[in-house]
Order: sequence, then C-alpha cells, then structure tokens
Amino acid sequence: MSRIAYVNGRYVPFADARVHIEDRGYQLGDGVYEVCEIRDGALVDRRRHLERLARSLAALRIAPPLTASAMNFVLEEMVRRNRVRDGLLYLQVTRGVARRDHGFPEKQVKPALTITVRGLDRKKLEASAAAGISVITVPDDRWGRVDIKTIGLLPNTLARQRAKEAGVKDAWFVDGDGFVTEGASSNAWIVTKDGTLVTRPSYPGILTGITMTVVKEIAASLQMKLEERPFTVEEALGAEEAFATSATQIVMPVVVIDGRKVGSGTPGQVAMRLREAFHRVAEIGQKIL
Amino acid sequence: MSRIAYVNGRYVPFADARVHIEDRGYQLGDGVYEVCEIRDGALVDRRRHLERLARSLAALRIAPPLTASAMNFVLEEMVRRNRVRDGLLYLQVTRGVARRDHGFPEKQVKPALTITVRGLDRKKLEASAAAGISVITVPDDRWGRVDIKTIGLLPNTLARQRAKEAGVKDAWFVDGDGFVTEGASSNAWIVTKDGTLVTRPSYPGILTGITMTVVKEIAASLQMKLEERPFTVEEALGAEEAFATSATQIVMPVVVIDGRKVGSGTPGQVAMRLREAFHRVAEIGQKIL
Repeated sequence: MSRIAYVNGRYVPFADARVHIEDRGYQLGDGVYEVCEIRDGALVDRRRHLERLARSLAALRIAPPLTASAMNFVLEEMVRRNRVRDGLLYLQVTRGVARRDHGFPEKQVKPALTITVRGLDRKKLEASAAAGISVITVPDDRWGRVDIKTIGLLPNTLARQRAKEAGVKDAWFVDGDGFVTEGASSNAWIVTKDGTLVTRPSYPGILTGITMTVVKEIAASLQMKLEERPFTVEEALGAEEAFATSATQIVMPVVVIDGRKVGSGTPGQVAMRLREAFHRVAEIGQKIL
Repeated sequence: MSRIAYVNGRYVPFADARVHIEDRGYQLGDGVYEVCEIRDGALVDRRRHLERLARSLAALRIAPPLTASAMNFVLEEMVRRNRVRDGLLYLQVTRGVARRDHGFPEKQVKPALTITVRGLDRKKLEASAAAGISVITVPDDRWGRVDIKTIGLLPNTLARQRAKEAGVKDAWFVDGDGFVTEGASSNAWIVTKDGTLVTRPSYPGILTGITMTVVKEIAASLQMKLEERPFTVEEALGAEEAFATSATQIVMPVVVIDGRKVGSGTPGQVAMRLREAFHRVAEIGQKIL
C-alpha cells in the first residue's frame, strides 16, 4: 500500500487521499493513467511513459497537469517518500472538477493529478514467470479508442474477473474475426515454430505498450525475426510459445490458453531470453538515466 | 449546485463531498448511476429508476448499497435538505474502495453511494422544446454493454463535445450499418409520414430509458402506432418528425440533423403532444405516489 499519495499538489497520508465527487474521472471516466515499474528506486522507461501520457492527454484535449520538470520532481519525490525500491507507480490525470455535464467544462478547470506507489514482490513475480501463466480468451467488446490509455477499464475489469473465476491469471481479448487483440492489461505475443515473434501492430485496436516497445527493440538487437500482424487463438495454440508483456509482468510466458497447452505447456526459451534481456536493459538504463 | 451531497452514509456540504482515490469508480470506471427528475419536490418515476439501478448493479455484481427503504429515505432527505422543487437528482454506486487491481476485490468491500441534487430551469427547458434542437450524428464506437448504465461515459462525453463545437445541442450515435442507436444521453425517435412512432428496441445496443418506457406507455394510451425497429439517418431526415427522450429533456423535438431539416424544421405535433401528456402523467403520478 502507498504510504503517501500525491493529490492535486499535496503529499498526503494514503488514508486521506480524496478527490471531489464531481471530479470528471469519478462521474464520467474522463481521464487517463500510466503504471510505471520502480526498480532500485528509479522509474523504468519514465520518459516513454510520460510521452505516452502526453499523447493520451492530447487525444482527450486535457491540459498537462504539471510542467515536465515539475512532473519529474513529483514522481521522484513520491518514490522517495514511499521508500519503495521495487514496485509500481500509478499516476492518473483527469479533466478536473466541474458541474456534471457531458461536454467539456465551459471554463477551463485544473486537471486533477493523483499518484500512488506500492511495493512489488519481485521473487513472486519471478516464480510466476518460471512457471508460466494460463489465460482464457474473451470477446473484445471494448470501445473504439482503446489506443488511448483511459481509466474506463470496466470491460478489462470484467474480463480479469472472468479469468479469476476460471482459475487463471489473465484474459486475452479476441476480436470479431477471431484475432487476439491484447490482454486485459498486457500485450499478447506468440513465437512461431520457426522462431518468429508475432504481435499485433500498434494501431488500430490495441494500446501501444511501453514494455512491448522495449521488447521489440531488444528482439531487434538480438536479431530475432518479428512480424507485426494479428494472430488467431488457433495459431497461438499451435505456436511454439506464447507470452504477455506489461510494465507489471515484464515478459510473462503464457503456457495454457482456454485450457489447452501452448507448445510443450512450459515457459518457452524465447520468452525467458527476452525477459532476462529486459532485466539487463532496465538495470543498465537505471545506471545511465 | 447541490448544497448538500450524500457521501457513503453522511450528508455533507457539497464542497466537502469527497471519495478516496482508490474508489474503483475513480480508477476503473467500476460503477453505475441514475439521473432522476424532481418535480414539485418529488422524484419522477422513482420506482423505475431504482429498478433499473438494481439491474445495473446485478449485471456488475455490485451489492445494493442500501436497503430499498433506506434508499427511499435518503433520496427524499436529499431533495428536502437541498430545498429543490424542480431539478435533478444524480446518484452513483461504485464497487467501493480497494487496492487497485482489475479483478473484483478478494474481500467484500462496501459499495460507495454518492448523491447530488440540483435545480433545473424549467422555463428554459420549455423554451428549448418550443424551438426544437439540432443534433449531429457520430459513429457509435462505444463498448458492447451500453445496456448497463455505467459511469464509463467518455465516448458520450466526446460525442457531446463534438456537438457543442458544431454549435448544436446533442449527438446521435450511428452504428456500422447506418442505423441510429441512441443519443449521447437520450433515446432517439422518429415519426413517419403516416404518423407511426419508430424507436430502436431496447436490446441490444441501447440503454432502456425510463422516459422512453413511459413515453411508449403514453403513446399506447393515446392509441398511437409504435414500431420498435432501428432507423437510418436518411429515414430520420425524410421523416415527419424526430425527437429525443430523457429524464432531463423529457420529450425534446429534434428539428435539424447534420445541418438538414427534419420535416418542416419545426417541432412536430406528435412530439409536443407526447411532451404535454408526459407532463400530465408526471403531475398525476406525483399526487398518487
């Protein structure tokens, strides 16, 4: 749990972290967010997360809540004040507080910025990766702009809940043509029998993951072949490996889909190699930045 | 503006109406809402609104925040404390406060209930109805479960904003086949040349409006012909009349769609007759209930 939360300019004890009920995030889902990994007390891929945040805000025409330097200061301060070495930073920006009305407020209102930080059990995550996870597939019934990282996550919530009730870790969305779009909070990948990485192109229909982008770069540096195209559930089941990428899970082998084994049903070599490489890159990154 | 807000068991000054930032409504859009008209100090169609709220909550498996009698008491108390004769009551229920995670909380948490009340300028609304409103059409890119009245209203917000910027009052959503689904916060109707009312069936793809349901009953009692089927934008433009129904707007004539006149470009007789009949029914209803 976050000890200290940041709420609209103030660092407050987590229990006192409150926003007004007419914050448009609460009544209209009018906001965006980012989740950033904290490693050795520093934020992994911070620049990329802030760039994506800027894109999300621009797409909804919400003003940046802080200047770039103030934002960087606040993020560092939040990690420091919460004394977290390894964990996650969650940040959310909404259009701010205004009398409830669907259209944007007539008068310019101040965007709302809230941030929390929490620790992460890295050993547990590594154990999970070593075993691989199972997923189910669910129809992708989300809205047309999932390329914007909005807080309207009810479909993702319902998908994850279905997964939990099916006794598995996550759900993968499948579009009307039978192609996997992405996970409830991750990007979906497969490795074909000839060792080619396959993942869906960023646009349309999916959110461009930061970890996904970094993993593509790592794959290129390792001279792995990558095809950016949609793949079906059947192709995933017949693939050599499958895995998911996200800031929380890094590279997570997916060994069972809808109760059927992928490949040997154990974490694949390519996924594990990418996971290790990501760890190295993140560690080097922390030393350079 | 609401003078007093209800927040999780307490009546508080509106300025102090706050919820925790880890309320799942704020971070995940995990909640539902109702808007109810207040007329002569009483709630119009209260029973139907509470029934729909119960359906929305059941669809998301959120527990009712209060017993029916406690809810009725709180609603009346909110109208009384705010001293509103004519206005709107807004009520929202979310799954409650829990550590951010997509799946439902492991431990049962208390659902969050917040309520506000505000006055409404009835004269202004009647003037608006007497003139009729203009709308634009926008592609319906919402998620697959718009039949649940959730707080995830960003697509509606963006549609309404486009309407505002086009200088008109509202936006009507159009599906991939060219059929009107519903307005950004209303149901859409037309009246054909031979006087038949046409509106989309409740399911799938639209939210069953309470006002819509009442207007259907009124139309039946006035022996008007009703066809429940989808209609295209072209059919609406060639129709005798068009109108929208909602708790806020009651029956609102739509005289221009995408810059083109509907019928004569003035409020139609059928719409105005239904509006007057709704007013009568609402007034009688208040005396009976």
